[in-house]
Amino acid sequence: MYPFTFHNPTRILFGQGRIAELANEIPAGQKVLLTYGQGSIKKNGIFDQVAAALDGYEWSTFGGIEPNPTYETLMKAVEKIRLEKFDFLLAVGGGSVIDGTKFIAAAVNFAGDPWDILTKRAPITTALPFGSVLTLPATGSEMNNGSVITHKATQTKLPFMHPLVFPKFSILDPTTTFSLPAGQVANGVVDAFVHTVEQYLTYPVDAKVQDRFAEGLLLTLIEDGPQALSDPENEAVRANMMWSATLALNGLIGAGVPQDWATHMIGHEITALYGLDHAQTLAIVLPSVLQSQKEQKKEKLLQYAERVWGISTGSEDTRIDKAIRKTREFFEQMGIKTRLSDYGLDATIVPKLVDQLEQHGMIKLGERRTVTLEVSRQILEMSV
Amino acid sequence: MYPFTFHNPTRILFGQGRIAELANEIPAGQKVLLTYGQGSIKKNGIFDQVAAALDGYEWSTFGGIEPNPTYETLMKAVEKIRLEKFDFLLAVGGGSVIDGTKFIAAAVNFAGDPWDILTKRAPITTALPFGSVLTLPATGSEMNNGSVITHKATQTKLPFMHPLVFPKFSILDPTTTFSLPAGQVANGVVDAFVHTVEQYLTYPVDAKVQDRFAEGLLLTLIEDGPQALSDPENEAVRANMMWSATLALNGLIGAGVPQDWATHMIGHEITALYGLDHAQTLAIVLPSVLQSQKEQKKEKLLQYAERVWGISTGSEDTRIDKAIRKTREFFEQMGIKTRLSDYGLDATIVPKLVDQLEQHGMIKLGERRTVTLEVSRQILEMSV
Repeated sequence: MYPFTFHNPTRILFGQGRIAELANEIPAGQKVLLTYGQGSIKKNGIFDQVAAALDGYEWSTFGGIEPNPTYETLMKAVEKIRLEKFDFLLAVGGGSVIDGTKFIAAAVNFAGDPWDILTKRAPITTALPFGSVLTLPATGSEMNNGSVITHKATQTKLPFMHPLVFPKFSILDPTTTFSLPAGQVANGVVDAFVHTVEQYLTYPVDAKVQDRFAEGLLLTLIEDGPQALSDPENEAVRANMMWSATLALNGLIGAGVPQDWATHMIGHEITALYGLDHAQTLAIVLPSVLQSQKEQKKEKLLQYAERVWGISTGSEDTRIDKAIRKTREFFEQMGIKTRLSDYGLDATIVPKLVDQLEQHGMIKLGERRTVTLEVSRQILEMSV
Repeated sequence: MYPFTFHNPTRILFGQGRIAELANEIPAGQKVLLTYGQGSIKKNGIFDQVAAALDGYEWSTFGGIEPNPTYETLMKAVEKIRLEKFDFLLAVGGGSVIDGTKFIAAAVNFAGDPWDILTKRAPITTALPFGSVLTLPATGSEMNNGSVITHKATQTKLPFMHPLVFPKFSILDPTTTFSLPAGQVANGVVDAFVHTVEQYLTYPVDAKVQDRFAEGLLLTLIEDGPQALSDPENEAVRANMMWSATLALNGLIGAGVPQDWATHMIGHEITALYGLDHAQTLAIVLPSVLQSQKEQKKEKLLQYAERVWGISTGSEDTRIDKAIRKTREFFEQMGIKTRLSDYGLDATIVPKLVDQLEQHGMIKLGERRTVTLEVSRQILEMSV
């Protein structure tokens, strides 16, 4: 295993009814800005639970954070905070709201244009403290220090990470997910699955614990994912989904191992240009990445085939192809289509996407930096 | 899964050579007290590495912390700190040194007799900050907030836990374990194995991730434990051992699941009265606890048999017996004897041990509180 530093100070409150404990987590006297998305929390009762728990605080709201949160929208929150002087942010929603809130927290006291945090890795020296109430298990943002923001004007989607933007706490109540549309549940399962794969399907470094943990998450998602769709109010199933998605990207399974974020980086460009859901792009790109990088990932693909899919007979090539096919079938079983053509897109978009990758410096992706622009082009062509 | 709160703010620096980074972790200007054990760190070069890394700090040492650290010894460190005004503690050693340092950190500013922290759960309101350099993977103390202290005068061994005694950081360099005697390596593997079992072999609550993670740790310990003995300078093997032992007791696999600490509690009494190594007592007691609680633990024992030992044929009883036998054989394979009689003890000690359990309030142990004093007596008799 490689040397690593692991530090994750986010406090997790997991279980039904934990929203009521908010007042134990936010220091008394803080002026709180509740950030949220498209308003579903006002329909399913979560907003009311949060409002009740915030009784005694001075607080206000900022709504309208989009899926793939935009710089343009988030800067309005930044202005509001600068004017009205909030002390603490509370993100109530899924990964987009939490990612957006991280950017807001970092931008409020940033000198200069906060977009530089993404494009120029401009250093952050302070951030507003914030917590989250997670309503959509998927991205892991509730227990990590990463964020992905979209610049609408330039159709650019870029990530940033900083130790100052770990949530102070996150409340994970599986029952808050009962009212999610099936498509969002499926997106979450696919997102968590792909996060896990991207930290696992690289090359072996004899990191036995990280491998077993990653396989444990994948097996759980495969076992409980379909049931999360067919039996939406099964709390045990939703709890397993929620905790799997958090642990898929809290730094633990990726500590000390190579990582390959090619699927995410290529996927981001598809979302930025054509508006597909983040998870849809992952379901499209991952099978092609695995197919393209079969040789580079051979040993781990064989381990994945055996330990995750129970495939232990046949030639190496047969086993690997079968495992990739099983992966695609799992996404389809979750109701997520895995071809660009399923979304009305064709090979004509490939050059434009490759241009975007080049513009964003994504010219050598993958754990061995073998995914050049030419390889990305092939991967996209295989994904049509 | 049950509701849970998970919070682990300890920063882990893992890998060869990380001791050199100490100065990034301890604030400049702090007066540091380095705590250590029986002096092996002065022979194997670790003390010199730490001393070099502390260049620029005002620092001093406190040595002589015993395996099963005693209140009597630790209070001498407390006196030294009160007199000489140290700001930061640095534990260099295994679980005993780190456990002892946690007690020191909590005791320094405690009003009254700090032994009350253990016997009366007297509340701690402050603790000195501390970090650790781990040299013996075993207890997980380097990434948790628990500590076990022995009162020599009264032959009592008691645990305490407090959020204030998480290490600020822990440095895990697998190469520091190369010079450990085989017996200590074996003890560490058995300790980590039993920690995992005690959070796993209870009753099912459909906590799929926690189960798979626990199984992943057990499989790693079974695969790499014997190799840690036969190939002591294999860094990859030692790295897997070290990370497994840390994750076995950092709160993660025990979050949201029932736990059964009967083996540890019974084992503590054997150590307190007869001086056996902690891990030796666990290797003696665990097989008998599993045998005794076969009915209560049936479903998880069958899962353990299948997923950890690959036992999937035969009657339920046969599979369970085989899994318990395999567990005992694994401890013996690590060179740790599993019967009281192997250590020159016989059934005559049982009443005295049961008395001690009663005195310490250990009258209903186990995940269902079915391990009464009478059951503990049977377990001890089965362990002769």
